[in-house]
Amino acid sequence: MSAALPATLLASINQDRLWQRHADMAAHGAIPGPRPDRAGVNRACFTAEDIAARQMLVGWATARGFEVSQDAIANLYIRRRGTESSRAPIVTGSHMDTQPRGGRFDGIYGVLAGFEVLEALEDAGIATVAPVEVVAWTNEEGGRFAPGTMGSMVFAGQKSVEAFAEVRDTSGVRFADALAATLAATPAPITRPLPGVVGGYVEAHIEQGPRLEAAGARIGVVTGIQGMRWFEVDITGETAHAGTCPVGQRRDALRSAHAVVSALYDVTRDPEDTLRFTIGRFLVDPGSPNTVPNRVHFTIDMRHPDKATLDRLADAIPATITAAVAPCTATVRVTNASAPMVFDQQVVDRVEAATKALGLPYLVMPSGAGHDAGYVARLAPAGMIFIPCERGVSHNEAEFATPQDLTNGTRVLAATLLAMAGVV
Amino acid sequence: MSAALPATLLASINQDRLWQRHADMAAHGAIPGPRPDRAGVNRACFTAEDIAARQMLVGWATARGFEVSQDAIANLYIRRRGTESSRAPIVTGSHMDTQPRGGRFDGIYGVLAGFEVLEALEDAGIATVAPVEVVAWTNEEGGRFAPGTMGSMVFAGQKSVEAFAEVRDTSGVRFADALAATLAATPAPITRPLPGVVGGYVEAHIEQGPRLEAAGARIGVVTGIQGMRWFEVDITGETAHAGTCPVGQRRDALRSAHAVVSALYDVTRDPEDTLRFTIGRFLVDPGSPNTVPNRVHFTIDMRHPDKATLDRLADAIPATITAAVAPCTATVRVTNASAPMVFDQQVVDRVEAATKALGLPYLVMPSGAGHDAGYVARLAPAGMIFIPCERGVSHNEAEFATPQDLTNGTRVLAATLLAMAGVV
Repeated sequence: MSAALPATLLASINQDRLWQRHADMAAHGAIPGPRPDRAGVNRACFTAEDIAARQMLVGWATARGFEVSQDAIANLYIRRRGTESSRAPIVTGSHMDTQPRGGRFDGIYGVLAGFEVLEALEDAGIATVAPVEVVAWTNEEGGRFAPGTMGSMVFAGQKSVEAFAEVRDTSGVRFADALAATLAATPAPITRPLPGVVGGYVEAHIEQGPRLEAAGARIGVVTGIQGMRWFEVDITGETAHAGTCPVGQRRDALRSAHAVVSALYDVTRDPEDTLRFTIGRFLVDPGSPNTVPNRVHFTIDMRHPDKATLDRLADAIPATITAAVAPCTATVRVTNASAPMVFDQQVVDRVEAATKALGLPYLVMPSGAGHDAGYVARLAPAGMIFIPCERGVSHNEAEFATPQDLTNGTRVLAATLLAMAGVV
Repeated sequence: MSAALPATLLASINQDRLWQRHADMAAHGAIPGPRPDRAGVNRACFTAEDIAARQMLVGWATARGFEVSQDAIANLYIRRRGTESSRAPIVTGSHMDTQPRGGRFDGIYGVLAGFEVLEALEDAGIATVAPVEVVAWTNEEGGRFAPGTMGSMVFAGQKSVEAFAEVRDTSGVRFADALAATLAATPAPITRPLPGVVGGYVEAHIEQGPRLEAAGARIGVVTGIQGMRWFEVDITGETAHAGTCPVGQRRDALRSAHAVVSALYDVTRDPEDTLRFTIGRFLVDPGSPNTVPNRVHFTIDMRHPDKATLDRLADAIPATITAAVAPCTATVRVTNASAPMVFDQQVVDRVEAATKALGLPYLVMPSGAGHDAGYVARLAPAGMIFIPCERGVSHNEAEFATPQDLTNGTRVLAATLLAMAGVV
């Protein structure tokens, strides 16, 4: 696919404005970082900081004459009208909530890049056929109310709002109550239907990984979202006195867990380094230096873009654990599973064409992380645009992307959205 | 060494009385166990429960006409006079405090077995040359105020009471304040000197391990206390997103810790199964399922009865860790070290002779756990007597020893103490 670049639109994209918007948003939930220009953000879903960020976005949108609205799970929409009001909107966006020690780019970049496109369209006086919308999805991170991606999940009709009503945060606050307070505090009418209506979707996001930087690429043309399988493993042995019980007579849960992890590392070794295999939580009880542990609990996070490979490797996990755990015992359960998502080829092609036309070096790659785009893709053709982030660091105060990369991604987004929405 | 058994003394040892005393003491700090006859005890040092236990013991002693006294760290002494009051006392005893989820035998058995010997001496009308004393050492467990074995450490002149004054429990209570309250609440004069005076020492204790039961032995003739080396290891890597960061580009602290532990298991493999090697605490940060860990902290507890072997193996630990930890980094520090303690051969021989004379099957063995006897042995000839405990379970509500084994151990103790104190 080749693309004639929309020169007037691209010329209207304002790097300084885009950077300043990031700084303004980062004030809501600002936390110290490793140095002054690497400060972080802690802005959990439906907190005062999240509400303030929503209000700020609504204020900017209203000032530019865009239409604002919400749906029943507080997904927030900003619409610039098209010439055919009956056309389903071409949507872009991402989320505004962060991890507890998050950065200034994860999520919010996709919202602000989209908003910059709306402003640039306005500044350039370009009319689109379909409406172009920016959406801020509710609770992508899931750090306060689990699970994450609630907003896009409900938008896509995979869950009802009511299904999450009784989810509570660690302080005991109900999701339904925090939602009602957020809806009431946001000056936008609750008029949008659920499931949602969307003609096409493109989401800009930092990569949250090191591949673009390592390759010297400035854009990631995202082909899909890799599949994921999560496990929880519990290993049970028996406590014993570290001084008195011979090693050979123990049922040491940590020693068995060690043998299990060795076996898991062996079966998941991937010379191509495509499989992501992570043990992120690993708890040992009772945790006393002179007591042989009787319990280990650990998690497995496996991801791969190819369904057959993921299924084959993940299906082997329980038997691998069972075979290695003697003299202890193990239980294994799957706590999360998603098949690889392949984005619409036409959207992927449009993103690649725009990137090529802009002369930006790029990688064609799957997304390692899950994103709201994975749910929206169930309703309409969808895709994503990645930009590099420093050293691949994300979910960390030190998260950083350069103003130039933010602008590059926004320019690719603008060209792609314009092609999808149609110029009058 | 052969022994003429003191028949009248042994006949006076009263199994029912001894068992009832255990039940009475277990009321102070009683906690539920896995079944009614396996209830546990939570009696931390200087708590109301510990004070009540001390008061109960003083009451029993006073009723029998024994002399009670304390020293400045609240070690509690019960003396039955000898015919030569100038002779240093022959001492037995152990501790009355327990682990938070402790049992009804660890420590208190040594105190009650000693008290049973005093009562049996009284009942049998036997006069000893040297005084015979029972001591209840303060804070052997160290669960509330760290470290443990404070009482015997101070008795042996290894530390001053003042050295522990500012130690605080998790509620912020100072050791010195809890000590003062305990001394005031215990009806026994604070007249004993520190360091203490002792002519010889024998301590009865449950094995807290499975060896006697496995061997069908009823008595452990304890030759010493194995040496110990504790380490704390910190491994530092870098967090990364579990979905986006290729495994080959990670500095995964858990993966490095796994390689380190493999290397440690290799170098500490002992075909004779004499070395005790335990990783009891193992903490992984940040502990999120989809974040590559950046930090692992773990402890090593190594013990061996032979000094040269322990030194050789323990000295190899830091280099073993450093060699295996790439691409992460590690720091290793020794947090505790004690050389193997070898008990006085004459005391060991006396215990063995008494056991043989009673016709009890026995093992000659080092103690796997540390005990107050390890400190008292610095002042005078000392030894220990072990009895089996069910399945080796200790520091656990389910801890159990049979009335017959309690009695067997007390009979060996009585014969040993009498031989050491001398019969008039």
